[in-house]
Amino acid sequence: MNDGAPGRLLLVPNTLDHGSDPVPIEAVLARGVLEQAAALRHWVVEDARSARAFLKRVGAVTPLGAPLQEITIAELPRARKGSGEQAPASAWTALLQPALAGHDLGLLSEAGLPAVADPGAQLVAAAHEAGLRVLPLAGPSALMLALAASGLDGQSFAFVGYLPQEALARERRLRELEALSRRQRQTQLFIETPYRNAALAAALLAALQPSTRLAIACGLTLPNGFNRCCRVADWRRTPPAMPDRLPAVFALLAD
Amino acid sequence: MNDGAPGRLLLVPNTLDHGSDPVPIEAVLARGVLEQAAALRHWVVEDARSARAFLKRVGAVTPLGAPLQEITIAELPRARKGSGEQAPASAWTALLQPALAGHDLGLLSEAGLPAVADPGAQLVAAAHEAGLRVLPLAGPSALMLALAASGLDGQSFAFVGYLPQEALARERRLRELEALSRRQRQTQLFIETPYRNAALAAALLAALQPSTRLAIACGLTLPNGFNRCCRVADWRRTPPAMPDRLPAVFALLAD
Repeated sequence: MNDGAPGRLLLVPNTLDHGSDPVPIEAVLARGVLEQAAALRHWVVEDARSARAFLKRVGAVTPLGAPLQEITIAELPRARKGSGEQAPASAWTALLQPALAGHDLGLLSEAGLPAVADPGAQLVAAAHEAGLRVLPLAGPSALMLALAASGLDGQSFAFVGYLPQEALARERRLRELEALSRRQRQTQLFIETPYRNAALAAALLAALQPSTRLAIACGLTLPNGFNRCCRVADWRRTPPAMPDRLPAVFALLAD
Repeated sequence: MNDGAPGRLLLVPNTLDHGSDPVPIEAVLARGVLEQAAALRHWVVEDARSARAFLKRVGAVTPLGAPLQEITIAELPRARKGSGEQAPASAWTALLQPALAGHDLGLLSEAGLPAVADPGAQLVAAAHEAGLRVLPLAGPSALMLALAASGLDGQSFAFVGYLPQEALARERRLRELEALSRRQRQTQLFIETPYRNAALAAALLAALQPSTRLAIACGLTLPNGFNRCCRVADWRRTPPAMPDRLPAVFALLAD
């Protein structure tokens, strides 16, 4: 394993089911990715408990390189999603220690690709800073699946994260995104924590222009997932029944 | 197969190797996705020849539901990448005919997810319009792999497609993107046709501020791929050797 060369930082995709009502892991992750994940003995993860659950799922289809209890799993510094991650540089160097010592190191988030709409980017930046190789492994991205499924412009788009929670600020932000989308002909994508999905959907239907196209994708890759894209005027006639436990991605494109 | 209900439009991911120097298909595509692709008898694709090559690769790991010559493969209307797709509504309805007649229909692009930085969005839009279910299947997205590998902000980013080819217009656009990135704290992603990679890289190093962070990811998921992210000042000291045949994704984030 360790020939004196530094290890790599492997960006390992997770499923999109958040471990509840799990889909077969081979439904969404490639065999080659599972094999590379199974071989890793060192991890930095968003959440250790769900990472162990992930490794059990991986181990069920391809043998792990070491017993689970011998695999080291460190957690990323906690930061509320949507806020900036803040941790001293020394924290990142400490997390990269296994790679600096010559071992490949996996980075895993709770769902989808690490460091995309998820923590981890600062670890990747620290890896580049330290001269480590960074190897992103193919896997599902909820944002891109939602974008592809929307039929909205996929040649020009932006992901803007979370909207403000306060009603007036959220309405102002929505009108701003709608104007920006119209001016730049740019699809605007955003997310919300699942239990606020219904409130956001209602706010969208209230605030947006009737002719704006709005896509909602919920539970992507899950058996009970759904997606639909139509004009706001049509959504108003048949509003979505938003589940409060499935992650959703929203996208709009204004005419 | 056909119980009177309409078929679905399945968005099928492709590998990122463009068929040359191919990686094992199971290195990047999930078993479940390969099985769903193998079962389809009707396709709309960016390019029929490469779609047949894709189906041969799929068939080598999971048996196709019908002999290749019995699978119908229609091509999307040609449009230069980066320009708007323009075809009459009747063209999209004709392409959706198999789904309207009750058969599942696959949409496939040359690489990665269809309808993301690739043609196909208008077919997806037409499917929604016709009331068809759209099912996006998990697969690699070069843009998201590049973003994850960059260590740049993955909570706020935009994909702006291709930059102008003319030198002055390109420089103006780069400064505009850099200013936008600084103002919005938004990572800006863009692509170029491979044979212009080196020219674009040189233009980036010339036009951007020394403190701007620039990521270049080339040949994602390929054995000879590489990626690196550092400040423009550091790139200037060790400029990238850009291959002229590997697709690349560029990303910048200004301080």
